[in-house]
Amino acid sequence: MVNDRSSAIGQRSLGDPGIRYPLWPPLTTGCPETSTETTSYPVEVDYDYDRVPPELFQQPAGSGLDRWAPLLPPLHAPGLGEGGTPLIELPGDGVHIKDESRNPTWSHKDRLNRVAVSAAAGIGAPGIVVASSGNHGASAAAFAARAGLRCIVLASPAPPAVNTFLRSYGAVVLTVPTEARWPLLRRIVAETGFHPVSNSTTTHTGHAFGPEGYKTVAYEIFAELGVPAAMFVPTGYGELLFGVWKGFAELVRLGLAARTPRLFACEPAAGGPLSRAISQGLPATSVEVGPTSAYGISCAVGGYRATVAVHESAGRALLVDDAEMAAAQRDLGRSGLWCEVSSAAGLAGFRQVREEFDGPVVCVTTSSGFKDIGVGTERPDVLDPEWDVVRRHLRNADIHC
Amino acid sequence: MVNDRSSAIGQRSLGDPGIRYPLWPPLTTGCPETSTETTSYPVEVDYDYDRVPPELFQQPAGSGLDRWAPLLPPLHAPGLGEGGTPLIELPGDGVHIKDESRNPTWSHKDRLNRVAVSAAAGIGAPGIVVASSGNHGASAAAFAARAGLRCIVLASPAPPAVNTFLRSYGAVVLTVPTEARWPLLRRIVAETGFHPVSNSTTTHTGHAFGPEGYKTVAYEIFAELGVPAAMFVPTGYGELLFGVWKGFAELVRLGLAARTPRLFACEPAAGGPLSRAISQGLPATSVEVGPTSAYGISCAVGGYRATVAVHESAGRALLVDDAEMAAAQRDLGRSGLWCEVSSAAGLAGFRQVREEFDGPVVCVTTSSGFKDIGVGTERPDVLDPEWDVVRRHLRNADIHC
Repeated sequence: MVNDRSSAIGQRSLGDPGIRYPLWPPLTTGCPETSTETTSYPVEVDYDYDRVPPELFQQPAGSGLDRWAPLLPPLHAPGLGEGGTPLIELPGDGVHIKDESRNPTWSHKDRLNRVAVSAAAGIGAPGIVVASSGNHGASAAAFAARAGLRCIVLASPAPPAVNTFLRSYGAVVLTVPTEARWPLLRRIVAETGFHPVSNSTTTHTGHAFGPEGYKTVAYEIFAELGVPAAMFVPTGYGELLFGVWKGFAELVRLGLAARTPRLFACEPAAGGPLSRAISQGLPATSVEVGPTSAYGISCAVGGYRATVAVHESAGRALLVDDAEMAAAQRDLGRSGLWCEVSSAAGLAGFRQVREEFDGPVVCVTTSSGFKDIGVGTERPDVLDPEWDVVRRHLRNADIHC
Repeated sequence: MVNDRSSAIGQRSLGDPGIRYPLWPPLTTGCPETSTETTSYPVEVDYDYDRVPPELFQQPAGSGLDRWAPLLPPLHAPGLGEGGTPLIELPGDGVHIKDESRNPTWSHKDRLNRVAVSAAAGIGAPGIVVASSGNHGASAAAFAARAGLRCIVLASPAPPAVNTFLRSYGAVVLTVPTEARWPLLRRIVAETGFHPVSNSTTTHTGHAFGPEGYKTVAYEIFAELGVPAAMFVPTGYGELLFGVWKGFAELVRLGLAARTPRLFACEPAAGGPLSRAISQGLPATSVEVGPTSAYGISCAVGGYRATVAVHESAGRALLVDDAEMAAAQRDLGRSGLWCEVSSAAGLAGFRQVREEFDGPVVCVTTSSGFKDIGVGTERPDVLDPEWDVVRRHLRNADIHC
């Protein structure tokens, strides 16, 4: 089960890249040396890039993240065929959609959890604990189940279909008030020895290894399309944004690509800690969050990873409002792709920017439409099946009959 | 957009393989010559197998069914990255799961609809019409949207989350009493010229081209694993069963495989028209259907395709009850795979047979758990986040703390 093709050699502070730590144990509360009372700095995984086989990007697509094992932390936990999602070109907008709803639990989070649960397995933890209202929790539960580890999900109240989803993988799901999740997470870690795969620091640091899994989005796009001119990424804590940036940055380092795409972070306008941090020149900050239907990326607290990705890629942090996301979600559905409203933030951001790019543009849709708040609340009327009634409905919909 | 790599040369009656028809138009009500008042015989697509490039099965996995274009009817409608789903080995049962929930609308139906909507585009129909309470309707709507065709879905009352799903692709969704759907389908075809992608004959014939899309399940399994000893397939009308059989039969014909797997059809015990037909020596028949949670494969009417697949593969028709399917669904969840209860019929069938097979066994899970009847009806209590309360819950779940 253990995948020992990893070239990972240690952890390195994002706060000060000169500061290094051993690879084990994963630093689940960020870099102790550079973090301050107001800003927590994450760590990232460092690799011996000279050990990465040069033919890695010419190999046939395999199943799961194992294909990219040399550029990931050790994959101690078994996979579920995560990753390998398709790129679909939209005719009208001229953009490519990277559709992450094709993952094992139908969101991008599966890439992170394959790696984070592998970290838990690697240190011999009896289980994992996660604070989540949706995709992350269900994904963590699925990979824990696959690895034979217990899983505790501290859930905040979630949409009805998501409640069922969270419970389907056999995790212990405890629904608690939103703000109680993080103190309970720390307590559970202390009392049980379970490995945390959610954040517990002041500004977001999250899991030390997890975001490495998102690099595979970049690898797959590169193998299929080369380097896009720009990418638009739905952004909550910014882990996906960072992973995508780091993946392309590694391709540059390996001499395979000349540059990274410009990365556009797309946050809900109801919050936007990254936009605030960028405009104020801060590494990371927090904001008040107003109501938004994009609960999957509605975060009061940002993280330094996202700031790095935007700065290093000459990108921007965009704010998209609920109407812009709803319009993008609707139009994706009209193209045959039904995504969660927060997933449509990428396309909404692209439309807002309306810039001409010198090359392909990729918008990431992170998750399936089944996870939205309004799903399952419609109760359609049953029609009288008389032809006159049906014909009237068809004519009202501009169907000639 | 048109994919002209197809080797299709015509339609052929399943009732009498000596009877052939031109490839166009698709015979949407089966074979007119062999069908009787009680039994409708489908047609299938015939190919010039000598034109199939010998290297087809050595080529790298591409995106969507286009990879297999020489063995499919012409793909006039654009794809959504359908197919290419992973095979996942379960540790306990020693079986492989072909997880069809990774498709564009999270079910196997996307393979059929890429092909059926291509047929509609190929004859220049202004739209398609489909009778469905779930996966088939949403999938048809998605591929129609992608192709710029209108879509009418005649829906029977569906689970809450599925109602939202059906409406997400911009189709005209008319919810009507279940039994009114087929007469309305025929009327709409007559009055609008829309192309039907659902059945409208006495026993099931369905779309002439659509089941060809399911052959790609066999091709993918063969490319990854070779020929399994047995496959267990959730079975409603038997189109998937037939497609899988035909795919392997073609591999034998092409000289690439020595045999097909034995195919085990897994029908809900509440109905089971195929089991009845097989036991009575009929080509196809109908049954009374009792209540079952496996609504996705609960069919009163069977079709001759399924009978062919079982007989030709030396397979069997199994009946699995709701408790067996629920247990299999639960255990798949505990392995990290959450499927619709009807999707678990395959694993339920395998466990019922408990036979030793001389080679790998594959169970197909057809769809995501989001589509089940009970989804979204749970309302979890919000816990008091005091540690004593949380600890009691964890201890009740056998977590040491």
